[in-house]
Amino acid sequence: MNKAAIVGVGHSKFGVRRDASLRELAFEAVRECLSDANLSLSEIDASVTGVCISELAREVNPSFPIADYIGMNPKPDFRVASACATGSAAIRTAWMGISSGLYDVVLVIGAEKMTESPTPVVTEVMGRGGDVQWEYAYGTTFPGYYAMMANRHMHEFGTTHEQLAMVAVKNHRNALDNPYAQFRKEINVEKVLGSPMVAYPLTLFDCCPLTDGAAAVILASEEKARKITDTPIWLVGLGLATDSHTLSNRETLVGIPASTIAFKQASKMAKVTHKDIDVVEVHDCFTIAEIMAYEDLGFCEKGEGGKLIEEGVTEIGGEIPVNTDGGLKAKGHPVGATGVSQTVEITKQLRGEAGKRQVEGAEVGLSHNVGSSGQSVFVHIYRR
Amino acid sequence: MNKAAIVGVGHSKFGVRRDASLRELAFEAVRECLSDANLSLSEIDASVTGVCISELAREVNPSFPIADYIGMNPKPDFRVASACATGSAAIRTAWMGISSGLYDVVLVIGAEKMTESPTPVVTEVMGRGGDVQWEYAYGTTFPGYYAMMANRHMHEFGTTHEQLAMVAVKNHRNALDNPYAQFRKEINVEKVLGSPMVAYPLTLFDCCPLTDGAAAVILASEEKARKITDTPIWLVGLGLATDSHTLSNRETLVGIPASTIAFKQASKMAKVTHKDIDVVEVHDCFTIAEIMAYEDLGFCEKGEGGKLIEEGVTEIGGEIPVNTDGGLKAKGHPVGATGVSQTVEITKQLRGEAGKRQVEGAEVGLSHNVGSSGQSVFVHIYRR
Repeated sequence: MNKAAIVGVGHSKFGVRRDASLRELAFEAVRECLSDANLSLSEIDASVTGVCISELAREVNPSFPIADYIGMNPKPDFRVASACATGSAAIRTAWMGISSGLYDVVLVIGAEKMTESPTPVVTEVMGRGGDVQWEYAYGTTFPGYYAMMANRHMHEFGTTHEQLAMVAVKNHRNALDNPYAQFRKEINVEKVLGSPMVAYPLTLFDCCPLTDGAAAVILASEEKARKITDTPIWLVGLGLATDSHTLSNRETLVGIPASTIAFKQASKMAKVTHKDIDVVEVHDCFTIAEIMAYEDLGFCEKGEGGKLIEEGVTEIGGEIPVNTDGGLKAKGHPVGATGVSQTVEITKQLRGEAGKRQVEGAEVGLSHNVGSSGQSVFVHIYRR
Repeated sequence: MNKAAIVGVGHSKFGVRRDASLRELAFEAVRECLSDANLSLSEIDASVTGVCISELAREVNPSFPIADYIGMNPKPDFRVASACATGSAAIRTAWMGISSGLYDVVLVIGAEKMTESPTPVVTEVMGRGGDVQWEYAYGTTFPGYYAMMANRHMHEFGTTHEQLAMVAVKNHRNALDNPYAQFRKEINVEKVLGSPMVAYPLTLFDCCPLTDGAAAVILASEEKARKITDTPIWLVGLGLATDSHTLSNRETLVGIPASTIAFKQASKMAKVTHKDIDVVEVHDCFTIAEIMAYEDLGFCEKGEGGKLIEEGVTEIGGEIPVNTDGGLKAKGHPVGATGVSQTVEITKQLRGEAGKRQVEGAEVGLSHNVGSSGQSVFVHIYRR
């Protein structure tokens, strides 16, 4: 397996972006990414584009207008998707392209435009990320799936809504220092508990927002990477596991089993253990998702996630900082972009370029990206 | 670049499949594929799933229910797409996975369920494969795009509707001997010319049908392939090129430039020239598309495609047999499955297992799969 490294990163402003179409958001991230890598588009061999929801893009194949608009034609490009883990699927594909020797330098684009359609339409379409035949048909939407997990987690382990709320508080605080974040406003536990109920126990501030945005990274082969940059960030571990499309067929409601499997694959490939990992991005689409991720990824025992956030372990400055960029919760969650955005943050952390949210001396990072309610989980491990 | 070979193929019956859902169609193809390779699912490392139109699947991420239903969980799987070339994108991805060393044995699934939704909805959704901002908005649907190309081709080169019709006649004749084909009925030139007008000059019989169906192949690393089968079919050349999302920005209307570029990449990688190639699958979504493919792939000069079909060169028994399985035109075109189905046919031809439609002594084959109206083109070259 030939090595591949991240040699450039770019990010659009996340938020309600009435000023930019899908293709324009992608361009915003790509332009910054090329500039960061000090490359021109002519030096890129191919691209891989992650857009999750063609229904919202109103294009059958949303990678076509993006590749066209940013100027990739006639170079190779296609679309990959894995629901909310679409961005990580794109990065995995680019890694395979480079490691196989087919490409030397690959641009990865993740983008989504979610706020243009009426919210009920988006909620319906997103709900169709669950099983349309057996679960969605009975009224489940995304907050419902995660609310079921939260209720069971509280029941089995005594996890409290206050602990869930602390995830939101931490991630909003981290986003204060991320200029790309959708929400840059400090909140407190009372604010979360007192916000409108979405699906018991999850209130509005337990849920990530709908977001427009894009992120981009450039991966390169070892030879090219060393020419392009003095600080290549090596993608050294890849994990991908899948699970039942219906929640009712999973072995547990208090975790996402595919996270554990994907972590094992990635850590084995990267030859790292938990104590080697300095900075982590997890998929906090709802506060309970971050608590479960702590446990499923093995940063604490099952059921101890609430305590981990309470004790400040996952704060910047804590033992294992999580979602230093604000996470899906406060940075925003343009679904096709999220996995790529996580890679952008880890790359900046490992380069030492994360500014006020820098984790001192970070050498190994991990990103964790969940498709739908756990149908797919991608874990990537990165090394300076 | 490590080698990869096709070691198993499977195919569902194509057609109006009211008896089977998307996941059931996929299973039908996968079951046959595993049986063909004499493998159990436990011997598969990962899968790649191509489904093009989530709007018709009514699932945001249609690979989830498929992976679940066929029993892939918890193994790696994600979705790839490139409009009507989705199946070939899946094969390219599987090749990269194996060549990189990440996987040894990969299942590729292509599937689409198109006849369940009302035809006007399908026509609208398919039309959105064109540029929604600049062209679809003015009323273009797929037959319209290809009709414009046909008109220009007739104008510039004197190509006749009779010549276009001969493509349909040939492909219907070839489909007679393909038990998986949607249409197994001989037609003649008069039938094509006299069928209802869809978009001048294209009549109903110039157009491929809407189809439900699935196809599957298994790719394996060199070491595994030699253990699994005595007749591995090596995927030796890969080409992928893209072009403008709008037809109006293309350099020509009488061809699909990305086909020529993709052919050059694939033939260079495979170290073959036209005279080495024994059997070809091209993307004949409309009869004019097959004529243009002859030219764009270099099997004749630009403008000579009409003559090629007239002279019988592309018939089984001719110098360069094209669409021996009936092509999209008569076999049917379940968009996500088509690229995989092409690979199934070439594999059977190179194994010498194509029955009555066998091209004698075929050693090298090529498949050509077009996304939308030429926004992407994949070319694969295979060797016995």
